[in-house]
Amino acid sequence: MEVYFDNSATTRCYDSVKDIVVKTMTEDFGNPSAMHLKGVEAEKYVKEATKIIAGILKVQEKEILFTSGGTESDNLALIGGALANKRNGNHIIITSVEHAAVSQPALYLQEQGFEITYLPVDVQGRVKMSALEAVLRPDTIMVSTMLVNNEVGAVMPVEEIAKMVHEKSPKALYHVDAIQGFGKYHIYPKRMGIDLLAVSGHKIHGPKGVGFLYINEKVKIIPQILGGGQQSGMRSGTDNVPGIAGLGVAAGQIYRNLDENVEHMYQLKEHIAKGLSEIEDIRINGMPLREGAPQILSISVMGVRSEVLLHSLEDKGIYISAGSACSSHKRKPSATLSAMGMSKDQIESTVRLSFCEENTIEEADYFLDTMKTLVPMLRRYSRK
Amino acid sequence: MEVYFDNSATTRCYDSVKDIVVKTMTEDFGNPSAMHLKGVEAEKYVKEATKIIAGILKVQEKEILFTSGGTESDNLALIGGALANKRNGNHIIITSVEHAAVSQPALYLQEQGFEITYLPVDVQGRVKMSALEAVLRPDTIMVSTMLVNNEVGAVMPVEEIAKMVHEKSPKALYHVDAIQGFGKYHIYPKRMGIDLLAVSGHKIHGPKGVGFLYINEKVKIIPQILGGGQQSGMRSGTDNVPGIAGLGVAAGQIYRNLDENVEHMYQLKEHIAKGLSEIEDIRINGMPLREGAPQILSISVMGVRSEVLLHSLEDKGIYISAGSACSSHKRKPSATLSAMGMSKDQIESTVRLSFCEENTIEEADYFLDTMKTLVPMLRRYSRK
Repeated sequence: MEVYFDNSATTRCYDSVKDIVVKTMTEDFGNPSAMHLKGVEAEKYVKEATKIIAGILKVQEKEILFTSGGTESDNLALIGGALANKRNGNHIIITSVEHAAVSQPALYLQEQGFEITYLPVDVQGRVKMSALEAVLRPDTIMVSTMLVNNEVGAVMPVEEIAKMVHEKSPKALYHVDAIQGFGKYHIYPKRMGIDLLAVSGHKIHGPKGVGFLYINEKVKIIPQILGGGQQSGMRSGTDNVPGIAGLGVAAGQIYRNLDENVEHMYQLKEHIAKGLSEIEDIRINGMPLREGAPQILSISVMGVRSEVLLHSLEDKGIYISAGSACSSHKRKPSATLSAMGMSKDQIESTVRLSFCEENTIEEADYFLDTMKTLVPMLRRYSRK
Repeated sequence: MEVYFDNSATTRCYDSVKDIVVKTMTEDFGNPSAMHLKGVEAEKYVKEATKIIAGILKVQEKEILFTSGGTESDNLALIGGALANKRNGNHIIITSVEHAAVSQPALYLQEQGFEITYLPVDVQGRVKMSALEAVLRPDTIMVSTMLVNNEVGAVMPVEEIAKMVHEKSPKALYHVDAIQGFGKYHIYPKRMGIDLLAVSGHKIHGPKGVGFLYINEKVKIIPQILGGGQQSGMRSGTDNVPGIAGLGVAAGQIYRNLDENVEHMYQLKEHIAKGLSEIEDIRINGMPLREGAPQILSISVMGVRSEVLLHSLEDKGIYISAGSACSSHKRKPSATLSAMGMSKDQIESTVRLSFCEENTIEEADYFLDTMKTLVPMLRRYSRK
């Protein structure tokens, strides 16, 4: 049996996504910038994807900007937003559990003279509102938080954060990295007070190499990739029509069945958590099961190093992640888990399971059965 | 009959490209950064593409950096290269016929305090070597030229330019925008003295949304997209495995039959030029047919506005471009054609045909027949 529980690293493309990618690669393959029919045909796919996504978020179509992925979206929001807004101040706030796609641009901005404040999180991985309140200033120009943490599935109170940011720092933009949250939550940036929102295609069964950034129409950001002036000059380069079309289809499909998908993933998560409770000394990290994100289950199998567990499960056809898989093989102690106050021992024993709606209870049972024989064996081995 | 003569705007993906994209979207869909088998499998595709491309260019695999396309490659070369090299000077040279993907980053660098010199071209669209010699300085840190001009197919003497740049400005990096040249010419950056080389996937029957930048191992550039540290930290973001794999397959296929493809395109070009000579007052622009790029034929149909001709041909199922299609619907007078010293009248009557190896003599004949009835009619119409 093969069990893929690493859907927060990347997902399998939907067949509907594959179909539209193939169609736009081989039939309607034009360049949307071309003035003839082939260009117009290609442009329709971009418009349709824009319409689907704007509809899901309940925003205007002109507020959606396509990028090469979540990382570019986050970079553009942070750097493009801070540079456009620097007359208003130079203070930026991010959480201490952000993905590198946010924390690295923040570090770059620090080198450029911006002041960065890192918000602490509680033991469940959630931003502390009191801490946010204490650091918001009139010269704060940007606040960036995740919606869903990629390592432990903690869900940030974005609406509450937005409200506080806009009250206490009226010049600040509020950026939400929704790369693990889009496709799992209903997100309405306008109602929620979100100015910028980054999304990736390949986390929602869409293509790799494509994502988008929602930019509130009133928000100015400075483009980072310059050239032919595509996308109203905000992001140059020939539109990635297959990628964009595929992203639109994936978004449409995932939101069509959102509530039942989410319920299914919560049931999987609960089923696994219950099963794991029968094995000694396995800790469940993050928020209470139903309060955290439906697709992420972070566990610490005390006494077993995460890599050892990962590779032992791999031998049985089960794929999970040690911490976050997004950081290109680098195995640094996780900043997220440290920020949550975990001990080094626990951090080193922490793995992430991440589900999608296609995972089954049978897969969960196979995982549990495997764990029940594997974990005691690995513990005996590691004690030698 | 449908005739697509706009291959310099974009190309149809090869079936082999489509196949590997589908495979990596639906079967081997892992994240190369993941530590388990699914990640390792996905990474193999990236390694294979790297190997193919490095082999074609005769460079090292570690010198190939994948990007989201030609525009990002050019941006990274110009901005990343200039910023990394700014201790050595602040003078940058580009030609006056560069694509916006180069000229816009140059303009950005000018705003940042760099001094930009624009090299003139001759009536054929070629860089004047004497002009280059006159402007190279010890504090020149970057020279950027195309290999093949996208509007008229002029071929720049890159080897000669490289030699002069390195002799007169030893601190300068020489960047070549090879977006229209890769897949049409044998390019050996090391032998030719090219430090940076930008390539796009979708111009060579590969996917949109992917490209690469060759970076000589001795050259330092500053990364522009920051995050998880993929590609040795030079370009973060989950590797676009389907795009990269597709680009590798496209590059391999196009270079396998390069010489015969090129000969076929020259024959098409000559056939069409000969046929057009039977129509009054059509000028062929750029270099002599066999000296210019094989795939591009720029013509001025005097007395007929390019948009009018474009749409009239479109009605007959023939797709061409008015000037360059890469600039998102904007119809500004072409800087390239102006730099070549063309009159406004001629510029407004200029269209571009661009071929691929799949175009046929039958298509060329259909185009010629159509032109022979259409052009006199349009001229009568425009005189009214």
